[in-house]
Amino acid sequence: MPNSFGKIFTVTTWGESHGGAVGVVVDGCPPRLPLETPEIQAELDRRRPGQSDLVTPRQEEDKVEILSGVFEGRTTGAPISLLVRNTDARPGAYDEMKEKFRPSHADFTYQAKFGIRDHRGGGRSSARETIGRVAAGAIAKKVLHVAGGVEIRAFVTRVHDLEAPPPDHFPTLEEVEASSVRCPDAATAARMIERIKAVRAEGDSVGGLIECRVRGVPAGLGEPVFDRLEADLAKAMLSLPATKGFEIGSGFSGTLLKGSEHNDLFENREGQVRTRTNRSGGVQGGISNGEEICFRVAFKPTATLLRRQETVDVHGQPAELMGRGRHDPCVLPRAVPIVEAMAALVLVDHWMRHAAQCGTFKF
Amino acid sequence: MPNSFGKIFTVTTWGESHGGAVGVVVDGCPPRLPLETPEIQAELDRRRPGQSDLVTPRQEEDKVEILSGVFEGRTTGAPISLLVRNTDARPGAYDEMKEKFRPSHADFTYQAKFGIRDHRGGGRSSARETIGRVAAGAIAKKVLHVAGGVEIRAFVTRVHDLEAPPPDHFPTLEEVEASSVRCPDAATAARMIERIKAVRAEGDSVGGLIECRVRGVPAGLGEPVFDRLEADLAKAMLSLPATKGFEIGSGFSGTLLKGSEHNDLFENREGQVRTRTNRSGGVQGGISNGEEICFRVAFKPTATLLRRQETVDVHGQPAELMGRGRHDPCVLPRAVPIVEAMAALVLVDHWMRHAAQCGTFKF
Amino acid sequence: MPNSFGKIFTVTTWGESHGGAVGVVVDGCPPRLPLETPEIQAELDRRRPGQSDLVTPRQEEDKVEILSGVFEGRTTGAPISLLVRNTDARPGAYDEMKEKFRPSHADFTYQAKFGIRDHRGGGRSSARETIGRVAAGAIAKKVLHVAGGVEIRAFVTRVHDLEAPPPDHFPTLEEVEASSVRCPDAATAARMIERIKAVRAEGDSVGGLIECRVRGVPAGLGEPVFDRLEADLAKAMLSLPATKGFEIGSGFSGTLLKGSEHNDLFENREGQVRTRTNRSGGVQGGISNGEEICFRVAFKPTATLLRRQETVDVHGQPAELMGRGRHDPCVLPRAVPIVEAMAALVLVDHWMRHAAQCGTFKF
Amino acid sequence: MPNSFGKIFTVTTWGESHGGAVGVVVDGCPPRLPLETPEIQAELDRRRPGQSDLVTPRQEEDKVEILSGVFEGRTTGAPISLLVRNTDARPGAYDEMKEKFRPSHADFTYQAKFGIRDHRGGGRSSARETIGRVAAGAIAKKVLHVAGGVEIRAFVTRVHDLEAPPPDHFPTLEEVEASSVRCPDAATAARMIERIKAVRAEGDSVGGLIECRVRGVPAGLGEPVFDRLEADLAKAMLSLPATKGFEIGSGFSGTLLKGSEHNDLFENREGQVRTRTNRSGGVQGGISNGEEICFRVAFKPTATLLRRQETVDVHGQPAELMGRGRHDPCVLPRAVPIVEAMAALVLVDHWMRHAAQCGTFKF
Repeated sequence: MPNSFGKIFTVTTWGESHGGAVGVVVDGCPPRLPLETPEIQAELDRRRPGQSDLVTPRQEEDKVEILSGVFEGRTTGAPISLLVRNTDARPGAYDEMKEKFRPSHADFTYQAKFGIRDHRGGGRSSARETIGRVAAGAIAKKVLHVAGGVEIRAFVTRVHDLEAPPPDHFPTLEEVEASSVRCPDAATAARMIERIKAVRAEGDSVGGLIECRVRGVPAGLGEPVFDRLEADLAKAMLSLPATKGFEIGSGFSGTLLKGSEHNDLFENREGQVRTRTNRSGGVQGGISNGEEICFRVAFKPTATLLRRQETVDVHGQPAELMGRGRHDPCVLPRAVPIVEAMAALVLVDHWMRHAAQCGTFKF
Repeated sequence: MPNSFGKIFTVTTWGESHGGAVGVVVDGCPPRLPLETPEIQAELDRRRPGQSDLVTPRQEEDKVEILSGVFEGRTTGAPISLLVRNTDARPGAYDEMKEKFRPSHADFTYQAKFGIRDHRGGGRSSARETIGRVAAGAIAKKVLHVAGGVEIRAFVTRVHDLEAPPPDHFPTLEEVEASSVRCPDAATAARMIERIKAVRAEGDSVGGLIECRVRGVPAGLGEPVFDRLEADLAKAMLSLPATKGFEIGSGFSGTLLKGSEHNDLFENREGQVRTRTNRSGGVQGGISNGEEICFRVAFKPTATLLRRQETVDVHGQPAELMGRGRHDPCVLPRAVPIVEAMAALVLVDHWMRHAAQCGTFKF
Repeated sequence: MPNSFGKIFTVTTWGESHGGAVGVVVDGCPPRLPLETPEIQAELDRRRPGQSDLVTPRQEEDKVEILSGVFEGRTTGAPISLLVRNTDARPGAYDEMKEKFRPSHADFTYQAKFGIRDHRGGGRSSARETIGRVAAGAIAKKVLHVAGGVEIRAFVTRVHDLEAPPPDHFPTLEEVEASSVRCPDAATAARMIERIKAVRAEGDSVGGLIECRVRGVPAGLGEPVFDRLEADLAKAMLSLPATKGFEIGSGFSGTLLKGSEHNDLFENREGQVRTRTNRSGGVQGGISNGEEICFRVAFKPTATLLRRQETVDVHGQPAELMGRGRHDPCVLPRAVPIVEAMAALVLVDHWMRHAAQCGTFKF
Repeated sequence: MPNSFGKIFTVTTWGESHGGAVGVVVDGCPPRLPLETPEIQAELDRRRPGQSDLVTPRQEEDKVEILSGVFEGRTTGAPISLLVRNTDARPGAYDEMKEKFRPSHADFTYQAKFGIRDHRGGGRSSARETIGRVAAGAIAKKVLHVAGGVEIRAFVTRVHDLEAPPPDHFPTLEEVEASSVRCPDAATAARMIERIKAVRAEGDSVGGLIECRVRGVPAGLGEPVFDRLEADLAKAMLSLPATKGFEIGSGFSGTLLKGSEHNDLFENREGQVRTRTNRSGGVQGGISNGEEICFRVAFKPTATLLRRQETVDVHGQPAELMGRGRHDPCVLPRAVPIVEAMAALVLVDHWMRHAAQCGTFKF
């Protein structure tokens, strides 16, 4: 099931950029969760195009419809089907891509794999696929929030070479949303916005880093071996378009420390086993330890450029391609709610799996 | 199935450090593959303790036994059960861990999750769990090699701050195995070995980076959305003990480039669609593009230290712990075959999945 | 994923009787399959209400919309999302069921399981859920037909105690569709129709048997142990509403034979290994043997009766319930295409699984 | 994963009749369950050959070894690996099967599927594969019994045409074990034993029916659609060698009733919603309703006959085969603990799944 994610709380996304609609089916959702359309819409609005002058001007409301699984304002335990119609499709804008492979895009590999390809707007590789993830993630976030007080906060921490200082507190949603670039450090945010605009003016693009923190997760989520919490988070993040790397806790820079510098010593804090430092990033031995979960995701610069690039066509002949269509010169601002959504999906699924094995029968 | 990996070529590992044995069941292996015990043993020998003066002196032959699924030197398509007895268990050496949580180990989180814990040698969190992975990976590597001429080569590229220059060719197995640290650059290898010995003398530990390259993978493996090839590689790598990060292709440093610098332009080389550069790391849109697959994995310094550390005991009381037992001051040399094994498992599984969807029926 | 079926060719159904719509997502479909809406619609028309005077008069066109996964008349390998709007919902007709548990329905168990229940038309337990199965099955049937010439034919073989003689040939679609009861034996069909009408006049209901035959399946599909072909067929059939039993080949009556009477002797027929008899029903050791696959499914009488029944209400108090709403006095005629759909889903999935393990790599 | 069963409590069996051993890995078992080897051994002893004069004289102790997942007499939550060595293998006895396909056996289909076949004792198709199921089932039974007071009782209800009267109470284990044929009705049991011996004397074989009842299962286990409790039970039972049919509750004979005769009316009994009759067999809408679960499984007569049979050889040439080796003239007595094991596996898995979705988060 290549288009499904999660073992118990399972989401299946479907839809292409220029098909009739995109959507998601959420299967295994706990029953009786209060759920209204606006809660899902709010998350989609954070991801939708046209929300600021930094992102693609594609004009779509991305209005979500709940088709099943909710009755009188509560989930029933039946699969929840969510649908968003595609309304601003401009297939003609992509005619050139029918014949030419865009560099660093999925055009060539889709053709190689499937022997057929919906070239309009990238088809299935379009960022519109993430609408389903965000809609499902909104439900997962609500489950985590209502049931466990869990808070998930992603934010842009670097654009190109402009890096924000590490936040000295758990950033609030307001701080993140204060700037269109979703960097909670206002000064850096301003420079990031300037950079993105400058790069866009050149028809170019930039990438950067998103950091995600999660607090309120109890100790015990995750599995010792293959389904380690960080392994599933890594998969979730690398499953997003344009990602090239993942690190948790001390990450790549932690490899420069000695063990004596890196270990998180345990202490008793207010009656609880806690660690003094958090180089583990909230996960030890694959399992959450109750500390803040902290990871970072690397996004490459957007592949679509509004400038001429050399490539080959579907017959293998040299060709030139002039980027058209609507695109984001930097995907990070809109990727923030998507990172949160994927983190929420991983956590809810592990929470339920943990409960199944360790909470069902008491011996 | 938290102890299983792969959807079609599925491996399930089992066993603890000080239980009767460790092992793996490989389900879904193609039939008729020639397979003899020594081929699996050879990979286990690369991972086993006591193989050099850099690694834990635990003395175990790790002799593998094929219990099923192979008949007259060929696989039958039935599950292959592989078993390695634990012979050098020293449970007494771990008595202290019964009462105290080792910093940055899985002791506390296992206790928090399961309410019970086999403290001897870390139980399930022991590196001995990876025996099953390496044994299964040996089969996967053989499938890939025999059927597709695929070569997988991992090597140590950084220990602590000692980084080898990027290899100018696909390193040979001989080059990698030439040094006990498994870095193909001889000069750097010598300095790495020195550093590891120095750190061990202090009772301390170091981490670093392993790079893995794969050549011969055809275009078309991987999935567009959740099961992207890089997503499954990331999960595979982050499922290994002591890993903190994963990056593919340009990775984290690629985020410092602009799109115009980062894009891999297509060209026709000898009749094939190829990319001029390989910042994509062999994967585009989640699917292999026929170029070399290239990724790196960050390993933290070993958590077990042969020095005194503060911690708490199982009752939450402050305690001191003096590392004992046998351990590696740097896990990277022995992790090299494990990284290869996991890469092989991901690739075989995706190869078979691809064939199932795109190769079974022709329209 | 309780609402998904199949490991490689995976279908996920969603939707309730009186929600906005019902639908299905088909994931893993082979690419390049020619597929048009009318092909799916044709199967839905066989299942829809109001098609004859034997079935529920609920008036719905059940018009299917393909929302994704098909481009220029061919599947792309992306998930196929199919949607059917609910247009003749009459929620008011079910007010009584809000408070009372209908005997032998899912009302009580849904309430016990989920603590909440969409009582309108049975919610998720409605036969409308099978729309998604039939739509997905239409695709599976097409794959099997185009690629392998496989034919699947289900038909009603008994209603109440009226049993048709075993057909002396593989019934044609025309023979099955000739009568509204979908029994290919015209004489028996006439008596069955009469019986169903008589029973309906009493406000009562009847059940019976559906037989399904499949020809053209090559030897080799199915697995030796848990995922035997007959096991997955049994699961598929028992997953249908109102089913109480499954048998393959000689089935229950085969238990009255001795081994010497029951064994299917092999012979060489036109250069192929064939069996003289087919008590195995086309499956031996869990795997298809190339003979006709033949199984039967028992359907209980419809639980909804248009007469007074004793029951309890949601507070556990004694109550009386007078069946209202629209229902089929005998579900079998409309279940025929559903049985075919489920058989097709099982076979496509096993075909692809078989190819993955045994056809991808050649040794 | 064709050799795995269950989604959360997952068992993976491995091993062939004449390989080194057979075994099972149980993944996802709840932690802290008290578990000792003799509890598992006791169930294996009920299934082992040579236990009475009705069954195959193959002399094997089937001594089980717990290799992992249990520490100081309790499960740890890690995978439990169980192994039984094959000790009475007589490969020479099967030389003839190397060249000839036994009628109604898996020889031909395995060859057709895999292109290779371990012919010794049937290889993977041997009843020895069920050792792993019974061992895993012993753990599942213990979980159900300790945690929920659930009792599972299978028994032989018909051999050939000799049918026992329906028991007027839930049969005790002692009643079932009182006769070597495991029919709790002593008079019928005696006739069954006589019949089996007579048939064996002819070199022939017989089949029959096993009934299984489960009490103590709470309302709420099972899923509304594909993973209905009866669907998973049907799959579990049809996954057993030699089974040809499954029915639950009223089953096939229920199809002869009208709805007004078949419906189970609800009533309030001692403060609980109960049904007056139990034609549903304890499951409604795919979900347990708290009544006794009751189903029956049809086993065909053993395919191996100690008499001459016509067949073809691996080259498709006509051949004669004279049954040799050790076999059971009637598999039912030894199948009783296997049916119980599979029922236990289904129930534990569904219990844990139910808890995950409906018991983890409370709204």
